[in-house]
Amino acid sequence: MSDMKKELLYTGKAKDVYKTENDDEVIIKFRDDITALDGGKKDTLSKKGIYNALISSKLFEILEEQGVSTQYIKLIEQDEMLAKSLEMIPLEVICRNIAAGSLVKKYPFQNKQELNPPIIQFDYKNDEYHDPMLNDSIILALDIVNQETLDKIRDITLTINKVLCDYLKERTLLLVDFKLEFGFDKDGNIVLGDEISPDTTRLWDVETLENFDKDIFRKGESGVVDAYHKVVTLVLTEDEKDKWNVE
Amino acid sequence: MSDMKKELLYTGKAKDVYKTENDDEVIIKFRDDITALDGGKKDTLSKKGIYNALISSKLFEILEEQGVSTQYIKLIEQDEMLAKSLEMIPLEVICRNIAAGSLVKKYPFQNKQELNPPIIQFDYKNDEYHDPMLNDSIILALDIVNQETLDKIRDITLTINKVLCDYLKERTLLLVDFKLEFGFDKDGNIVLGDEISPDTTRLWDVETLENFDKDIFRKGESGVVDAYHKVVTLVLTEDEKDKWNVE
Repeated sequence: MSDMKKELLYTGKAKDVYKTENDDEVIIKFRDDITALDGGKKDTLSKKGIYNALISSKLFEILEEQGVSTQYIKLIEQDEMLAKSLEMIPLEVICRNIAAGSLVKKYPFQNKQELNPPIIQFDYKNDEYHDPMLNDSIILALDIVNQETLDKIRDITLTINKVLCDYLKERTLLLVDFKLEFGFDKDGNIVLGDEISPDTTRLWDVETLENFDKDIFRKGESGVVDAYHKVVTLVLTEDEKDKWNVE
Repeated sequence: MSDMKKELLYTGKAKDVYKTENDDEVIIKFRDDITALDGGKKDTLSKKGIYNALISSKLFEILEEQGVSTQYIKLIEQDEMLAKSLEMIPLEVICRNIAAGSLVKKYPFQNKQELNPPIIQFDYKNDEYHDPMLNDSIILALDIVNQETLDKIRDITLTINKVLCDYLKERTLLLVDFKLEFGFDKDGNIVLGDEISPDTTRLWDVETLENFDKDIFRKGESGVVDAYHKVVTLVLTEDEKDKWNVE
């Protein structure tokens, strides 16, 4: 447990955010809690927090190497990330390469249909209103962000999609879809925040299409943590696994 | 009853479309049926079909005068419109000037909040999927229309909004929101189709904000047909009222 953590700033469904002595930095603690179905399904799964912190940190590092600005500074414990303070934008930015989940329930897409170009969707991060889907016109009317910021977020999301699809495919994983959250840093730059983990993505084996993500939990099946562990072993290098004591 | 009507081509919730001897023209019969809440609430209200046909015809004429291409050719009976044949686009194009209805249920807008610029929203006209809201990205992925057509529809909708707001305001009615449907004519032009009536708009008295539209029916209140009749008397000229025997 890191000594750098001070006052709890915010507690989410699966992460806590703490102040540090530096106002420009926070510590994000990844908890073992898991929720689905708008909070209707909950559990605590040992080691899930560690695995998500390791995966998110690694993917944020890869994105930084490719010029995408992220909140990530460094991992300070297995489940604690030192990160830049951001003023978060209340949007869930969803990018879809293959039709799955709510998309095929809501619209006449074929399950597993390829989407090229990918679909980008903005949901309003608002528990009281159950995260409704937005469009550009409603985003502007609610004054969530302006058109310029929205266009930049869309461009950055497509870059992230390209980088992650390539990186994961080399490691036998298909990036089916994912959810991003962005914020503004102290200079007003748009920065990727939150996490990229099996909680916030759909990851399928490139050959068998077996899933290694929260859909296992949504379906009430066993093996959630084993699947998340598998993703850790696929995305981390041997040195990184040794450093963080991952078997 | 017009003799021009041939085979029934299509029957909707409140209108029937008939073939004529000319393939480029159809007859749209406005029925007295009224539905709401995704078909969960139904009734038949005497004269509603006539009033909607008269209002739609008048508003389509006003739009044509202002350069908007519409399906309307002429009214041939009180409740029957001769119209151009269109290949309809399965989009409900919703334009909102004041927050009301589903918008304030789904999002944190204040009821009766002014929306300037107006919100434009596209719903997928699809009974099986309960008319879900779309965004541009999903519209393109479903191949409903291409981006150029979508941008044109958005521009035409804003023009229609401007023309109708001005026309109705002079007649003491606020155009709160409305739904449009478009189609392609035989030359591939985008043409306004369907209807513009108290079934498909919210119309409020400019002073009292009393409503003269289907919300009266949605709320289960009486006076639906009286309200529609009031709109007819406000939008038609004295000569038009005489011609169509409106008291």
